[in-house]
Amino acid sequence: MVLLFYSEEDDPVAWKAALEARLPDLEVRVWPRIGDPREIEAALVWRPPPGMLAELPNLRAIFSLGAGIDALLADLTLPELPLCRMVDPSLTRSMSEYALTLALFYHRRLDLYEERQRAARWRMEMPRPAAETTVGIMGLGELGGDAARTLAAHGFRVRGWSRSRKRIAGVESCAGGKEFDRFLDGLDIVICLLPLTPETENILDAGLFARLAPGACLVHLARGAHLVEQDLLDAVQRGRLRGAVIDVFREEPLPPDHPFWRHPRIRVTPHTASYSLPETGAEVVADNIRRLRDGRPLRHLVRRERGY
Amino acid sequence: MVLLFYSEEDDPVAWKAALEARLPDLEVRVWPRIGDPREIEAALVWRPPPGMLAELPNLRAIFSLGAGIDALLADLTLPELPLCRMVDPSLTRSMSEYALTLALFYHRRLDLYEERQRAARWRMEMPRPAAETTVGIMGLGELGGDAARTLAAHGFRVRGWSRSRKRIAGVESCAGGKEFDRFLDGLDIVICLLPLTPETENILDAGLFARLAPGACLVHLARGAHLVEQDLLDAVQRGRLRGAVIDVFREEPLPPDHPFWRHPRIRVTPHTASYSLPETGAEVVADNIRRLRDGRPLRHLVRRERGY
Repeated sequence: MVLLFYSEEDDPVAWKAALEARLPDLEVRVWPRIGDPREIEAALVWRPPPGMLAELPNLRAIFSLGAGIDALLADLTLPELPLCRMVDPSLTRSMSEYALTLALFYHRRLDLYEERQRAARWRMEMPRPAAETTVGIMGLGELGGDAARTLAAHGFRVRGWSRSRKRIAGVESCAGGKEFDRFLDGLDIVICLLPLTPETENILDAGLFARLAPGACLVHLARGAHLVEQDLLDAVQRGRLRGAVIDVFREEPLPPDHPFWRHPRIRVTPHTASYSLPETGAEVVADNIRRLRDGRPLRHLVRRERGY
Repeated sequence: MVLLFYSEEDDPVAWKAALEARLPDLEVRVWPRIGDPREIEAALVWRPPPGMLAELPNLRAIFSLGAGIDALLADLTLPELPLCRMVDPSLTRSMSEYALTLALFYHRRLDLYEERQRAARWRMEMPRPAAETTVGIMGLGELGGDAARTLAAHGFRVRGWSRSRKRIAGVESCAGGKEFDRFLDGLDIVICLLPLTPETENILDAGLFARLAPGACLVHLARGAHLVEQDLLDAVQRGRLRGAVIDVFREEPLPPDHPFWRHPRIRVTPHTASYSLPETGAEVVADNIRRLRDGRPLRHLVRRERGY
């Protein structure tokens, strides 16, 4: 089988080697050296140019290099083929670690101590047990579910929100639009790990911020289009939110004149929460390629009607 | 039995209530209202004025409100009585949580991203697995041992150093002066949780910094006198160290003109790592008071000849 690899961010040499080592019958061709397009039966891609996949007449399946597939679905010419998200244990682990890092950052008030340091001001607040800090996780899929487990294992009080109810030990699960307000009510820290769909676009807005505990903190690790940027600026400015760490943006790299860069209570990190690694991700892709070859059902399939 | 309580930092009302609820025969007297000094048989103290305990003729045991007893031992008039350190599960948990918070802070490069944010500079580095970051814990007692376990459980590669060898799952234990260099060799992050003794005073110096990995980070949670401040300033200035979080100082509060306040790569936090809480610490003290009453051996005894 021939697989086309396309990504401007991932290392083609490492992915090709990791896949071909696992599948001796596989030939990985790295864009733009694709040879005869009719030979390509599978594609492993990250943000391919719109229209690119439509030009492969014998393509049978599309594998995403990332967990989010919103950019692929935005390509109106995308062939109606099985589409699989990336589920990579090291991607999941790195995402949960970043969520934990930032929850602890706010829980232990490192932002406030930094602000006081600028004024050479010594003022201690008694550290509170993690069980007294309520963290809300938006999205309880592969990534959000693992983050919720990680934070609950540390001792935080954790509430999660997703389309359908999930059972995760130590996590209060809220489901659907009806339970959204109950989910938000009084959260100290909210972490967004939602897929981007028409329903979740602009979900991080003034109305949401108003339901959190006064002085709550936002950690945004999902997609830029979830966030209404002006609402965040207003909420932090007025003290409704204490601060935010934003890792994803509508435009990346974030333009140098964007107000987030200069805001003392908004921390910008450069889409660094997590990445798929060939050492661990290739096994998941290889398993799906074997399934495709053998006619068995693929794993981690995207359900297009719900958008993720 | 009558117990004297002295602390300028801990809440006397909460401690008195928590102890008397557990020991109906106990009377807690809060300094300066001590009544007849001859009636006092036990003392629960934090940084009492030198000489104070020597004036209690019938004192039988001294309980520290903190894990460190260096300030008590510095009182040359301290009676030769059993002296017990504080071992409080919530104090231990809070200390380990702070160690984890700051290890993650550096592991996930939040300091570097903050520096780049000031220049509106978007530059991502691939997150590395925690197993590729080596954290060294100085001190493997009640606090250091728990911190080592917590960091190893998260996935960091953890090495510990203490006077005698310890067995902690997932932690490489180095013991004594002979193995000190081996312990330090190539550490990415070093966390100090040592007791302060004549042997450990000034241990965080240029010689130690030179043995760490280039660009290593220091997290200092023990006592101000462990650190040679000018050596830290030099090491960070020259880039030998990437940065440091310092929570304890020779003079606290840290004076407003101290250079640490203004250094962009030294984070000052106001001795906030951990505190004993009456809800959990009182049970440990109450257990020792019962032992004192019944003539059974006390727990958490300080061995004065070694200084902790």
